[in-house]
Amino acid sequence: MRSSEAARIAASDEAISVDELRLAARNHGMPLEALRYDITPVGMHYLLTHYDIPDVDPGRWRLTIGGHVTAPSTLTLAELAARPRVTRTLTLECAGNGRARLLPRPISQPWLDEAVSTARWTGTPLAPLLAEARPLDGAVEAVFTGADHGTERGVEQDYQRALSITEALGGDALIAYEMNGAPLPPQHGAPARLIVPGWYGMAHVKWLSDLTVTTEPFNGFQQATAYRFTQEPDEPGEPVTRIRPRALMIPPGFPDFMTRRRVVDGGEVHLRGRAWSGHAPIVRVEVSLDGGGSWADAHLGPEVELYAWRSWTMRWLADQPGDHELCARATDATGQVQPVGQAWNRQGMGNNTVQRVAVTVR
Amino acid sequence: MRSSEAARIAASDEAISVDELRLAARNHGMPLEALRYDITPVGMHYLLTHYDIPDVDPGRWRLTIGGHVTAPSTLTLAELAARPRVTRTLTLECAGNGRARLLPRPISQPWLDEAVSTARWTGTPLAPLLAEARPLDGAVEAVFTGADHGTERGVEQDYQRALSITEALGGDALIAYEMNGAPLPPQHGAPARLIVPGWYGMAHVKWLSDLTVTTEPFNGFQQATAYRFTQEPDEPGEPVTRIRPRALMIPPGFPDFMTRRRVVDGGEVHLRGRAWSGHAPIVRVEVSLDGGGSWADAHLGPEVELYAWRSWTMRWLADQPGDHELCARATDATGQVQPVGQAWNRQGMGNNTVQRVAVTVR
Repeated sequence: MRSSEAARIAASDEAISVDELRLAARNHGMPLEALRYDITPVGMHYLLTHYDIPDVDPGRWRLTIGGHVTAPSTLTLAELAARPRVTRTLTLECAGNGRARLLPRPISQPWLDEAVSTARWTGTPLAPLLAEARPLDGAVEAVFTGADHGTERGVEQDYQRALSITEALGGDALIAYEMNGAPLPPQHGAPARLIVPGWYGMAHVKWLSDLTVTTEPFNGFQQATAYRFTQEPDEPGEPVTRIRPRALMIPPGFPDFMTRRRVVDGGEVHLRGRAWSGHAPIVRVEVSLDGGGSWADAHLGPEVELYAWRSWTMRWLADQPGDHELCARATDATGQVQPVGQAWNRQGMGNNTVQRVAVTVR
Repeated sequence: MRSSEAARIAASDEAISVDELRLAARNHGMPLEALRYDITPVGMHYLLTHYDIPDVDPGRWRLTIGGHVTAPSTLTLAELAARPRVTRTLTLECAGNGRARLLPRPISQPWLDEAVSTARWTGTPLAPLLAEARPLDGAVEAVFTGADHGTERGVEQDYQRALSITEALGGDALIAYEMNGAPLPPQHGAPARLIVPGWYGMAHVKWLSDLTVTTEPFNGFQQATAYRFTQEPDEPGEPVTRIRPRALMIPPGFPDFMTRRRVVDGGEVHLRGRAWSGHAPIVRVEVSLDGGGSWADAHLGPEVELYAWRSWTMRWLADQPGDHELCARATDATGQVQPVGQAWNRQGMGNNTVQRVAVTVR
């Protein structure tokens, strides 16, 4: 692990800083009413960019494949697009989603609940492409480098992440060049990016430029320092990998502009939302109408595709005027259930605490 | 003016609130590196939504035209699209851009500098459509209603704004149904919205559903309360209308993730950006390399179209290692120049104070 300052934790009474606001103004979540769409329209897909969105000319773009391999190569975009083509419908979520709800609050991109979206990604499978380069004995990881460049806690870097050689050769990752049937937009990694189904967003390296096979585990900043579950500043911690189960509901009724508090007209209310997990299919969504005091099973919509969100619905007879707190929580086929309390960690990763939606019935 | 609480102003030591963060996570600015594009890619176009993005079925959508007219009518989307078609390249900016830089800070959507973008809007001219309805003697305003519904400072409303009948019949407003050559995306007002060239964003009513001609000035919340230049809570103030001149530069070099502070490699640096005004063409952009102490004229790119941003460039010989503050300011053909200090108002509207970009040359 290279030297870097530890991530900062806000003091107990510390409000949002201008640094956090600056990130929130650049990056953006998916407004939760967009949970209505099976496929998130492009401009509503959540977006986290570590540095600047680079200006990559697709005509000059090349993907270099090298390192500890027998047959290094360089591909143009046309050569990539001429390879076998697959399309996957996948839910992507930022590993930091829910960070700004943690107490105390880790200081970084201050997501609340909305850093999740679902798109159709089209590209070519990674595994056969890498196999053609013939990794040599002793290969342990594949390191993916993006074209975005910056500093983070004192470390200057191109954005880089690694997969184990087993995952890269045996998994279902794609090198994607289309999103929702059109060429990748600049902000989503044009002209090509990595897609690792089921993993949090940090694995899906955008503006992909290089794939290098290594004989040592990669210890770059984003792998060994940033995306870890840690409690103490010096602890190596556990790596952030697959998306934990989560359910979100479309906030019912209509909002107040400033507080986003909801007003619901009394009567039958059709609650609906989505649930997903990067570990396994969603098998259960429960809804609480009393702030988590009691739970009832929601109706699950059809399964779509592994690692794509699944719709759910519940009828609520809103016959009690006044304030209510609605919650939803998901369970996946591994048995993982969303926690009601917080699973705090220093980097604010993987916070899948249940959503709470305050509404006033009139 | 209907009763409502006054807008709140932050205390001098008050940091960003969770209410402001919640708005910043939903709405989003244009990352300033996107000033490189003549036309902002759709997903990077800034976005402010007062309430929820409504779910409007284009097949069932109708635009009703009525009120103080001889010939009220109802149009389908196909009927609207069959009318004369024009495309305009236009810069749109949120009236609240720069709000979070004001001291003290008005509490609302906390924009820094980035709530501006340029798109190609295609639609049919408003003036002949309204003329065909034949407004009667005594018509004073045209009120435009959108499908988004919510409360704001205690006032429940569909989003509504008015234009004077003179502006509506004599101006160059459009009812737009395409953005950058494709149907409007949901978040930008699908299936049709108002576009008022040169005006701040509040005038461009999204999810347009109704146009009503009135015999009295419209005193709805967004017209008489929200979008005003005021100093005191009870003052009626002046209406917010056209976009004030502004120049922005692409921050040079590369950023730190958290602070966005820039590092620039010493040598010749190609500074560039855009400038615009909703009053008149841009005639001058000046750049300061010493935090506003001295100014030099930038080179202006070609004029594009009235109310579309104009590119500008300047070579900077960055031969002094250390910290620098870069600024840019625009002048339009009416003689308006951006102020170096702030023009404070209670709602945080029209803050076109010069941009300041802190960089470290190495």
